[in-house]
Amino acid sequence: MNSKGFFITFEGIDGCGKTTQLELADNFLTASGRETLVIREPGSTPLSERIRDILLDNSLSVNPVSELMLYIAARAELVNNAIIPAIAAGKVVLCDRFYDSTTAYQGYGRGIDVTLISQLHRLTVGSHSPDLTFLIDVDYETSLSRRKLTADRLESESEEFFGKVRDGFVKIAEAEPERVVVIDGGKTIESIFAEVRHWLETRLKI
Amino acid sequence: MNSKGFFITFEGIDGCGKTTQLELADNFLTASGRETLVIREPGSTPLSERIRDILLDNSLSVNPVSELMLYIAARAELVNNAIIPAIAAGKVVLCDRFYDSTTAYQGYGRGIDVTLISQLHRLTVGSHSPDLTFLIDVDYETSLSRRKLTADRLESESEEFFGKVRDGFVKIAEAEPERVVVIDGGKTIESIFAEVRHWLETRLKI
Repeated sequence: MNSKGFFITFEGIDGCGKTTQLELADNFLTASGRETLVIREPGSTPLSERIRDILLDNSLSVNPVSELMLYIAARAELVNNAIIPAIAAGKVVLCDRFYDSTTAYQGYGRGIDVTLISQLHRLTVGSHSPDLTFLIDVDYETSLSRRKLTADRLESESEEFFGKVRDGFVKIAEAEPERVVVIDGGKTIESIFAEVRHWLETRLKI
Repeated sequence: MNSKGFFITFEGIDGCGKTTQLELADNFLTASGRETLVIREPGSTPLSERIRDILLDNSLSVNPVSELMLYIAARAELVNNAIIPAIAAGKVVLCDRFYDSTTAYQGYGRGIDVTLISQLHRLTVGSHSPDLTFLIDVDYETSLSRRKLTADRLESESEEFFGKVRDGFVKIAEAEPERVVVIDGGKTIESIFAEVRHWLETRLKI
């Protein structure tokens, strides 16, 4: 069995089912004897949690550039203090959202230059890009029906916005087909996980 | 008298005397009949104050990239919600630190690519660059003797770091001599303000 560190991210619009798939993947990997680290983004370190509180505070109006910078700030912290040490220790890192969400939401969704956003990703992540990314692709209606009832600030966006974000995720996947696996999120949880599991077995040689 | 909006920043290493000069400039402009807005950076809006609390919290270890992004996030908010409206209303905006501090501290001081930082400045500020910047230049010993005794995180840095930051400020001034006026901060408060006042009278046609 391969016990080198490995970095997996789960991406997609809100309500796509990525968190459920991450949990199933975590259970599967743990049962297979791999040590995992599950991270939600932003969050998981003291600084990132402080930033998360700001981002999800409905009483603050956060402009698109500030929003972008807060995500990058939280991520730089996560990479240095959580992801790099875990990979070095041979763990499988499972991250609920990572830099593709920033490109999709702040770039394609809010219209900030995606080339500049890519430069920020390189600054933040260095050589620690994800080894494997699952993009769970669903349409707006499906995502809406799955979201929790009390929407926070980020989730109370329009259908048009989510359309741009979804298209952005698809463009990211097309640009990096080796890294990003696109899975039809309209299927059942079980059949989505069958695909996830196949990729985990193949790439992690389980 | 010219009553168009005007944007002035005061820059220099901690303890250089810029805040004192800003206050004198504010008094002079107000006495001359100009309406002013005084801003400290980061801070001055609810979001920026939240970010300032994080940046000045000694219990959080903030890595250089996160620090940079937090400053940019706070600034984007300030520009949109305070500076642009004030300039549009014909006020003179006086800002205690602005983007030159980011270039000097995070770029020249901490070693983050200054070209990328310049791109972030353009993204944040758009066409609303400062019309006039006072760089109060002092050496480390002078700055140290003037600083308040209880140093916060940003002020408890080494002499070597402040040397790099000071050199960075000087490079910025050399690159934009039309905008940035360098004043020898080793002089008395009165003689520094005589220079500041001269520039205010000339540029604001007071």
